Amino acid sequence: MNSPDEPIVALATAQGISAIAVIRLSGKDSIDLAQKIFKGKDLVAQPSHTIHFGTIHDGEKNIDEVLVSVFKAPNSFTKENSVEISCHGSPVIVKEIIKVLVKNGARLATPGEFTKRAFINGRFDLAQAEAVADIIFAETDNARQAALNQMRGGFSKEIQHLREELIHFASLIELELDFGEEDVEFAKRDDLKKLIYQIQSYLHSLISSFDQGNVIKNGVPTVIAGKPNAGKSTLLNALLNEEKAIVSEIPGTTRDVIEDEMILGGISFRFMDTAGLRETTDIVESIGVERTHERIKKASLLLYVFDLSLPLDEILKEDGTLKKLNVPIIKVGNKMDKANADAIGKLQNQDFTLISASHKQNIQKLKDKILSHFHVGEVKQGDVLVTNLRHYQNLKQTNDALDRVLAGMDSGITGDFLAMDIRQALHYLGEITGQVTTDDLLANIFSKFCIGK
Amino acid sequence: MNSPDEPIVALATAQGISAIAVIRLSGKDSIDLAQKIFKGKDLVAQPSHTIHFGTIHDGEKNIDEVLVSVFKAPNSFTKENSVEISCHGSPVIVKEIIKVLVKNGARLATPGEFTKRAFINGRFDLAQAEAVADIIFAETDNARQAALNQMRGGFSKEIQHLREELIHFASLIELELDFGEEDVEFAKRDDLKKLIYQIQSYLHSLISSFDQGNVIKNGVPTVIAGKPNAGKSTLLNALLNEEKAIVSEIPGTTRDVIEDEMILGGISFRFMDTAGLRETTDIVESIGVERTHERIKKASLLLYVFDLSLPLDEILKEDGTLKKLNVPIIKVGNKMDKANADAIGKLQNQDFTLISASHKQNIQKLKDKILSHFHVGEVKQGDVLVTNLRHYQNLKQTNDALDRVLAGMDSGITGDFLAMDIRQALHYLGEITGQVTTDDLLANIFSKFCIGK
Repeated sequence: MNSPDEPIVALATAQGISAIAVIRLSGKDSIDLAQKIFKGKDLVAQPSHTIHFGTIHDGEKNIDEVLVSVFKAPNSFTKENSVEISCHGSPVIVKEIIKVLVKNGARLATPGEFTKRAFINGRFDLAQAEAVADIIFAETDNARQAALNQMRGGFSKEIQHLREELIHFASLIELELDFGEEDVEFAKRDDLKKLIYQIQSYLHSLISSFDQGNVIKNGVPTVIAGKPNAGKSTLLNALLNEEKAIVSEIPGTTRDVIEDEMILGGISFRFMDTAGLRETTDIVESIGVERTHERIKKASLLLYVFDLSLPLDEILKEDGTLKKLNVPIIKVGNKMDKANADAIGKLQNQDFTLISASHKQNIQKLKDKILSHFHVGEVKQGDVLVTNLRHYQNLKQTNDALDRVLAGMDSGITGDFLAMDIRQALHYLGEITGQVTTDDLLANIFSKFCIGK
Repeated sequence: MNSPDEPIVALATAQGISAIAVIRLSGKDSIDLAQKIFKGKDLVAQPSHTIHFGTIHDGEKNIDEVLVSVFKAPNSFTKENSVEISCHGSPVIVKEIIKVLVKNGARLATPGEFTKRAFINGRFDLAQAEAVADIIFAETDNARQAALNQMRGGFSKEIQHLREELIHFASLIELELDFGEEDVEFAKRDDLKKLIYQIQSYLHSLISSFDQGNVIKNGVPTVIAGKPNAGKSTLLNALLNEEKAIVSEIPGTTRDVIEDEMILGGISFRFMDTAGLRETTDIVESIGVERTHERIKKASLLLYVFDLSLPLDEILKEDGTLKKLNVPIIKVGNKMDKANADAIGKLQNQDFTLISASHKQNIQKLKDKILSHFHVGEVKQGDVLVTNLRHYQNLKQTNDALDRVLAGMDSGITGDFLAMDIRQALHYLGEITGQVTTDDLLANIFSKFCIGK
């Protein structure tokens, strides 16, 4: 078992060659520890939130000239004494500095350990801590805003408030049990019902926000499929090119874009490889391929590209094979300039979106069509959205437990059974914000964080 | 022409998802500019070297919760007012914050522009500014130490001191010229000679340090060649595996290792692809291939791997073809377990290093052999090494000009010609430390920096 406030250390900025890198150190003795390897002012004597120039050394050897920021408990991210060392952004220097800190008593931080300490020390609740990771991994401005809203409170306060009221009822009911056979009713059943309706109404609004929240946070896994030479790559490029221009309007800050990812209307669309579909010219046969099945199962959208230069009956036959697929499909008729007027009319009636990828014709129309499947508006400050699968599941379980409480009251069940269901609802609700935690739950949550956060 | 102190902005940490990212802003109005987009304390009123929690916003929209560090001129890296914004390490957030700063009047910094301003504002001389880039790009601890030494002064002071003495002589000689026909000699020729000897002795020590300095800074381009199946990859793995273990002893801090790079004795050995040699079984024929020629020309070391399971006469014949190559060669006899005693004796006499890569036999012996070609000890604090080709060339040109001064004095040349050569020496010397600069020179130097430095 690790000591809860021993100094932990990690690189907090991204790895790689850069102007500066920041090494983060937290724990009761972290300032004294930093002082041991620092030539400059006496860090321990400095006030919180101040920055000091000096040299990091390992015995006689100077490693680098740095700026050291001092944060004193409880005014730091972790609420512990903390130090940030801003050194030159060389991986060699980062390694040397971390090495000398470890030599002097620091331990390498595990992923998310700084945030875990912040949670344990009461900086924020568990849902807010999880939002810290979400904000870092946000791939769109909408996802960033949703995570920021959650980090700044989101549903936390409301859930805690409703949970406290429910706790109040639970204790009253448990008090009744102490009176055994006497027919007392401290907890008015009508008031309890009213409270449960109120809680459920809030739960429903949160639960129903998950569809939108999930799309915002995780994006839309999209498969582009179609026969060879239908123009899949040309289409992807036509879709991507315009978007890439927006992404890269600030040079030097664009991260490495995952190939085949497009942000459209604030949503990230991730295009998945469909080698299986691509390599075969028979869609029915290819559907039989296990791997392709798997891909389409994971997809939330299929863009199926038809080659309109082919004869109409072939196209219609190909279209017929798509019916077996259990995923939203957008039928894209590419090479519209090579189709005859008759075919165009018939295909439009069959809900084909007709485009020419190479001439960039109707690309906007296709985008509108894509977005019409995912009604996600801009996330505003203060909007509360459930984006986390864990929260979603717990909200549903809370709701189910409350349903059982209501049903129990209707069927005149005894107080001890009511109390049990209420306790269960409290448990699921408490796990969301971390009033109820287990080591496993925490380990599972924080292991998904970056090291250094 | 850019205004010399308009606010410039750039991401200063490496790109990518991480716990935190730092955005750097510098220029006369940078603190006021940061204040415009910051909700929290009044930054302008805060003392230098203090850190403040708050929110970055773009109008109504909150972008992120951040820590803002305030540095007041002249106590910052650039000697200008500066601000560092430490935000969550999300590329989306970095982009949004830089965007809102640009919207409010900042300009995107060009590569090295912060360091260029630090140089222009007199924080350090040009050789020290160049060392800032070297320290960031250092790939070994030796390279880091050499760059740190240079950044902390290195030869700068000594060169400036000698240059000042030379300027003194130059002005005396030019004064003589004013007196025209009168036979005055303000600048004693013997003293000038003594000074030149003193300068040249220092120049020689710097010039001769370049071989070592260059290897330390740039590593050793190494070609591993040999017939197919001679065991080149096995050898490389045997060499790398042990070293990689050292590199990764601190998990999470290891940068992405360039494949086929090995740090040995503080020197980085970069292994180059030799597809040309690899694909042909006839070394003579392959040498004819232009590309292979090119590679070997760029190499500073060739590790040629022989397959000792082949008949001895074949090995010797192969060895014979290597004589034409104009590069240091280490002849590695691999699969020594498959060679007979007779062959082993003969090959050792021919300076073969016999190993078994797969059994990891004699790998250390081979490493010692490799290092014996590059006598580079550990760089200590205070060691002065020339690592920069530009400095090396200017030192040589200074030395040549001083040679001409000496020869001129010996042949009784007139003062005006002496003065011209001295001025030339002063020019080359001054370019090293930046007393003499041109826009081109500065542009050339700083364009090689990271953005954000």
